[in-house]
Amino acid sequence: MTHRAIVLAVGSELATGLTVDSNSAYLARRLGEHGIQTVRHVTVGDDQAAIACAIRDAAADAQWVLVSGGLGPTPDDLTRHALAEAMDAELQMDDASLQHIEAFFRKLDRTMVEGNRIQAMIPAGAEAIANTCGTAPGIAATLGEARVVVLPGVPSEMKAMFERDVVPQLPSGAGAILQQTIRCFGTGESDLADMIRDLMQRGGDLEVGTTVAAGLISVRITSRGPSVQAADDAAQRVTAEIVQRLGSLVIGIGEQQTMERVVGERLDALGQTLATAESCTGGLVGEMLTAVPHSSSYYLGGAVTYCNEAKADILGVSRNILAEYGAVSEPVAGAMAEGARQRFGSDWAIGITGIAGPTGGTDEKPVGLVFIGLTGPDGTDVQTHIFGGSRAMVRRRSALMALNRLRLKLLAWQPCI
Amino acid sequence: MTHRAIVLAVGSELATGLTVDSNSAYLARRLGEHGIQTVRHVTVGDDQAAIACAIRDAAADAQWVLVSGGLGPTPDDLTRHALAEAMDAELQMDDASLQHIEAFFRKLDRTMVEGNRIQAMIPAGAEAIANTCGTAPGIAATLGEARVVVLPGVPSEMKAMFERDVVPQLPSGAGAILQQTIRCFGTGESDLADMIRDLMQRGGDLEVGTTVAAGLISVRITSRGPSVQAADDAAQRVTAEIVQRLGSLVIGIGEQQTMERVVGERLDALGQTLATAESCTGGLVGEMLTAVPHSSSYYLGGAVTYCNEAKADILGVSRNILAEYGAVSEPVAGAMAEGARQRFGSDWAIGITGIAGPTGGTDEKPVGLVFIGLTGPDGTDVQTHIFGGSRAMVRRRSALMALNRLRLKLLAWQPCI
Repeated sequence: MTHRAIVLAVGSELATGLTVDSNSAYLARRLGEHGIQTVRHVTVGDDQAAIACAIRDAAADAQWVLVSGGLGPTPDDLTRHALAEAMDAELQMDDASLQHIEAFFRKLDRTMVEGNRIQAMIPAGAEAIANTCGTAPGIAATLGEARVVVLPGVPSEMKAMFERDVVPQLPSGAGAILQQTIRCFGTGESDLADMIRDLMQRGGDLEVGTTVAAGLISVRITSRGPSVQAADDAAQRVTAEIVQRLGSLVIGIGEQQTMERVVGERLDALGQTLATAESCTGGLVGEMLTAVPHSSSYYLGGAVTYCNEAKADILGVSRNILAEYGAVSEPVAGAMAEGARQRFGSDWAIGITGIAGPTGGTDEKPVGLVFIGLTGPDGTDVQTHIFGGSRAMVRRRSALMALNRLRLKLLAWQPCI
Repeated sequence: MTHRAIVLAVGSELATGLTVDSNSAYLARRLGEHGIQTVRHVTVGDDQAAIACAIRDAAADAQWVLVSGGLGPTPDDLTRHALAEAMDAELQMDDASLQHIEAFFRKLDRTMVEGNRIQAMIPAGAEAIANTCGTAPGIAATLGEARVVVLPGVPSEMKAMFERDVVPQLPSGAGAILQQTIRCFGTGESDLADMIRDLMQRGGDLEVGTTVAAGLISVRITSRGPSVQAADDAAQRVTAEIVQRLGSLVIGIGEQQTMERVVGERLDALGQTLATAESCTGGLVGEMLTAVPHSSSYYLGGAVTYCNEAKADILGVSRNILAEYGAVSEPVAGAMAEGARQRFGSDWAIGITGIAGPTGGTDEKPVGLVFIGLTGPDGTDVQTHIFGGSRAMVRRRSALMALNRLRLKLLAWQPCI
């Protein structure tokens, strides 16, 4: 039987959306690696009744309840009170915890204020979890059939205490739940799903699903097995099958494999370089490329040329071509790429010109029309696209499409020997 | 009466912790700005029964239920089925939505696959919300006393549809809930709380709490009022009171005011420059400074000198001083700072040497012992610290303490006129 967990994040800064909760994702991922399935995340504010209610509900529905946050020394830190309420128990002073907190302040040569004493209190019947990173001890308790573990909200303290004190308590032999992401680009989500629909089963030991984010499609594989090895073997088998079917639609395997990273790694491996000339994307391609560490070894630079003058002066695009075809045209996209390649002395260059919208479109040249030029050792090629969506989406899709063109070209590229 | 909302995120990639949910924080923050308090966030996987149960529970407990995710065209997209289950209604084809999806594919010159038809289906009695960014329409429905709104999980589509279609439906006159963050550094959370304890009331229209993250203390103010103006006035009044009491412990007002940003802005305003010499922090101070855009205008560079040779060769630290006092010593921290100031020709320089641990400590020089030198136009000053916590925490605290020393110095600095 699969063990079920619910993770609970406490903090008004989380409930109101001021900050994004990353603790729960960490806990869910690590629990999964120990074969425990997180069925729900819940976030509540610094409200004792709401926290107590969330703890009770979770303990009635899962064997493991992992709570982070609300253990600090100030009046808005109410998780220990809420746990006591949920357990119908009194808060008691834990002497070992109090000594730890006193020693922490002595070491730092600071006076312990009265507020810190509350951090040494835990509900009767619960156990303290020592905190070697800060003052607040964690709390572990049994509530009905569930094991409830409360950890501090500070991510570094939470992670250290989870790894050291909670992981050894997790059931051995619960198996493992592993995850794999296959990053894809080049078709619609439903077209892609049609290619692997027979593999997209739900509810078994091997689940395959798709999600779309920031213009990329991710095929997500969740694999459950009696051991890490068994779960990994099953995940690898289905990954290999999907990669074979999807072919060059696959950018890479792993959550970190973004388009810009994959293109960069391939350029780096080939010892080749890239420059960019951007109009409607306004520097987005360059920004994406340079967000990757070490990009300076293959990305030589770019020119953002919004006006015709810049296209002519900086990139050497012929004024005749600009006049005859207009700035948003196939010949200009090619000439921008060629100009950037020459100006920066790169092996490859991308040129993008289009109408990102929301206004500026005509019947002949509608919003979303984008010309992407790619030039390199084998000549220049321009493709025409019409992208849907908002201005931001037209820009993002243009940038991804341009980088994908280069990716496909580099996949087939054999370095001269 | 305050309107209550529950936000619900759907997706196995979220429940398993593979990706962090940022949609819920966005929705909670925007609802707050319209006077609606988000009392709970819930995340569930792609499991129809779990989604339906979460929708029903939320609708029983709040006037607004905002759901994101699970509207895609693939078999793991189950939110529309779950909403139909929760409403006890059948899924029906929405003709306007189908036409929109067909037009979307026609514009992109792609064939619509059968799987996309499901995206045009909504529960009987619900209304479709048009999606101008992608294919999946949203769904709005009434369930008991609650308004349930389902939006796509892709953040750009979710945000566009929320702003355009949901915001106009929100009650006017519900007032506003605003938030403010005061970033602080230089004392413990409980000491700081003692200075403002009388202001840290809970449950009223003005809530003041503290949280700690990445070594900084944040005082968080939540202000409710009948209008944005009234809520803002109340927040400003208590902010002014807190800033006055905390004095130079306050780094800045606003979530974006990190230590490195504030120090950088002050240097920039004074037209002064900074260099760094780091041993136990290994480049962390430089990394923090350069993560801020435009940092090149005031940060001239740094040297990471782990070994004695580098301290002598690159920074010109005297070999006699290194031999007599050891690399982790007060004179070496000062000499490192002075060497960096000279090498880079900066106005200010920081030198850090210490024992970050986890090993390498002695009785005389324990783990956590760090010397921080600061040199500038007014001479050199070295301070000695003992930091608690893990290696990462000793490094982070050293970096923050060094930057804070410079911040306090710059606060009092009058440019020569």
